[in-house]
Amino acid sequence: MEELIRFGEKFFDELEIAVYRSRNVSVNIELNEISMASVRSGAVTIIRGIKDKRLGLAIIDSDEPARIKEAIEQAAKMAKLNSPDEKWVSLPEPGKYREAPKPNYELKETPPDRLVEMIVHGIKLAREKDPNAIVAGGEGGVTWEERQIINSHGIDVEQEGGAAYIFFELVGRKEGVVTPGIFDFEARRDLNLDVDGVVERAVRKVGWAYNVKASKNEEVPIILGPWAIAGLFSYALFPAFSGERLVKETTPLADKVGEQIASEVLTLYDDPFHELAIEPVIADGEGVPTRKNVLIEKGTFRGFVWDNYWARIYGTESTGNGKRDLRSGGINIGFHTMAIENGKKSFEDMISEIDRGYFVDGFQGAHSSNPDNGNFAVTANPAYLIEDGEVVGSSVFLIAGNVYELLKQASEVSKEQIVMPFMTTMITPFIRFENVKIAGK
Amino acid sequence: MEELIRFGEKFFDELEIAVYRSRNVSVNIELNEISMASVRSGAVTIIRGIKDKRLGLAIIDSDEPARIKEAIEQAAKMAKLNSPDEKWVSLPEPGKYREAPKPNYELKETPPDRLVEMIVHGIKLAREKDPNAIVAGGEGGVTWEERQIINSHGIDVEQEGGAAYIFFELVGRKEGVVTPGIFDFEARRDLNLDVDGVVERAVRKVGWAYNVKASKNEEVPIILGPWAIAGLFSYALFPAFSGERLVKETTPLADKVGEQIASEVLTLYDDPFHELAIEPVIADGEGVPTRKNVLIEKGTFRGFVWDNYWARIYGTESTGNGKRDLRSGGINIGFHTMAIENGKKSFEDMISEIDRGYFVDGFQGAHSSNPDNGNFAVTANPAYLIEDGEVVGSSVFLIAGNVYELLKQASEVSKEQIVMPFMTTMITPFIRFENVKIAGK
Repeated sequence: MEELIRFGEKFFDELEIAVYRSRNVSVNIELNEISMASVRSGAVTIIRGIKDKRLGLAIIDSDEPARIKEAIEQAAKMAKLNSPDEKWVSLPEPGKYREAPKPNYELKETPPDRLVEMIVHGIKLAREKDPNAIVAGGEGGVTWEERQIINSHGIDVEQEGGAAYIFFELVGRKEGVVTPGIFDFEARRDLNLDVDGVVERAVRKVGWAYNVKASKNEEVPIILGPWAIAGLFSYALFPAFSGERLVKETTPLADKVGEQIASEVLTLYDDPFHELAIEPVIADGEGVPTRKNVLIEKGTFRGFVWDNYWARIYGTESTGNGKRDLRSGGINIGFHTMAIENGKKSFEDMISEIDRGYFVDGFQGAHSSNPDNGNFAVTANPAYLIEDGEVVGSSVFLIAGNVYELLKQASEVSKEQIVMPFMTTMITPFIRFENVKIAGK
Repeated sequence: MEELIRFGEKFFDELEIAVYRSRNVSVNIELNEISMASVRSGAVTIIRGIKDKRLGLAIIDSDEPARIKEAIEQAAKMAKLNSPDEKWVSLPEPGKYREAPKPNYELKETPPDRLVEMIVHGIKLAREKDPNAIVAGGEGGVTWEERQIINSHGIDVEQEGGAAYIFFELVGRKEGVVTPGIFDFEARRDLNLDVDGVVERAVRKVGWAYNVKASKNEEVPIILGPWAIAGLFSYALFPAFSGERLVKETTPLADKVGEQIASEVLTLYDDPFHELAIEPVIADGEGVPTRKNVLIEKGTFRGFVWDNYWARIYGTESTGNGKRDLRSGGINIGFHTMAIENGKKSFEDMISEIDRGYFVDGFQGAHSSNPDNGNFAVTANPAYLIEDGEVVGSSVFLIAGNVYELLKQASEVSKEQIVMPFMTTMITPFIRFENVKIAGK
């Protein structure tokens, strides 16, 4: 790799080579059956080179040196044809990395059989526990990634590791009622997935969903679950923490550092070294050391996150939030593991304290939220009606609001913390919000 | 491969091995610059085996015999764990193929440079022709695929070929007006892409879009362009031609064979051997010969299309419409090249004959159409107002309707036929529809 950097310096003022090798095993479920087992592996190399502030970017599906040389030449031709980016400062300089947690090498060569066994057990268990339920869908998977990032300023960092995940989607049919698809999931850095727990949680929610309750316009406390929180926050809130948006003046948080933007019960930070994190990366996509970046501390907004490009333009330093997009090759500001600190009360106790309110498991339509101002309009589904401290049935309703108003309505976080491996990876408790206006559907 | 089938027969009553090797070169545009050049290549093998009516499906990212053997064993384990599919009849038997058009081997090894040159030229030309326009996005690409499908009943078919495509997205800014993203594109089986033509068409539409015209509720003739037609028909109409939907009773066409469902000006068929087709496959995803399947002949519905599985269940034969999903490995009923026959009048003449009406280039929201009944609600954007035979500006409006009512309103098809390589591959003229109710926005 070092030799390839030397080769590239013939064409560029500075350059970066990033190699990603991956292996993904997955097993899918469709209508109570295993529909597919797949093993996919490959390597991708991305060249980013700059000559006279002109950028060249090339991607190849290979990690062979001869092919990488061709890609370097390709990137060089591209750079010549592009106009200079006058804002360009430079690629990042080396930094000091934290010590990586030891990877679990069992995940490097897990055969699909291990997942098949778990899934067959899960399907059987779900149907035993609720003969009216079908396992409509689901997936188990094991991912393994080896990445190396090297640049002409001396960055040279590599890391490997893996994770396993599982999710089930159940649909119940009883006495003319067909429930919506009800999900539960788990993700962790070893193969000890708690399939029984995932199935039991899903079956319990299906049981609730057989009692369909009409919703109405009202103002009630709601508890949001991890899937709902990750969905809403990924689209309505997290983009506002991006330094690029600060530069472009498209974040409502521009002059809010140090201000109370949320209830005191909320502390949010991005840190791939959280003990439950599934991807404990020591370096971001351009080789900058990752670190714990506190975004909200007891309700107070603490600051923005940066990749190298936008940090240099703004005159600050990268916070290690340059995420590589393996499709486009580029670096965007993103998050590794967004964690919301947990509290002391159990989810069960939180439910038992509500006289009338809802537990919302998932939101539909969160992707059309507006991160420029935090406005959102979503359908809560599946959602569960709580009366006198107990879940009494399922419902569907709308919430149209503003995420910053909602953040101030948070009153309690559960002691349970759940890893949400989809969309932005999140580790989050259940969160109670007061006086949320809902519209019956 | 033959030896691998013999190996698989130790585990299965019948099995199929499908190998896809591909190479994709693409060059992307972002804001007047080339943002990325990529060369991606790989192989995928899919095993489908049946034992006692139990299905096993495995996918690997490789075409090496040793890895294929592992995948066969994996599929066999899966089949054992699944329940029998009592509807299963058998994999397809060999058939007679048409003679494949000779592939263009230049597309097998096209370097990214060729595309880079075209794109640099296209960006330059667009900016010369309209200094107020930016090339917001775009892509040029060359795809090459080699596929082999072999099964234990004697099917053994292979084919190779490639295609090239290009699209540009322009945005114009003038006197406070920012146009929507305006697209034009081309796709063909060689590298002779008419970049100048693509740019000229896009620039012309940008020119129209600088004059923003309010829309109102009215009933007018509209001309739909290829992108709008492909979007709407892919979601609202084409699924209704699927034999699976006939079996499941989710098509409104169930008892309509031989009936007039559209205006006489419309003839629609699926045939990968159309002279403009970009993927002239002789066999479908499970090795069944492709053929020309007429769906609508001068307005009369001619029948459904089938893959092997649903055809056997219904007691008919596959029409060669089993499409392989390379992600899930499965076969679904789909289309190769949907062609609408052209007419004699030029697009220009069609515009010149409209006193008041619209030319609709694209629809937003077509994906939420309901193929069970053909209902749709879409936003026409970009759309262009025609007055006294001339385009006088751009507009945005809503159409909520039913695709079968719309089909009867068709009154003319242009002589130009355009290849639409996105969504379902379509070859379509511009189509005029009478008395379309639109809602101003």
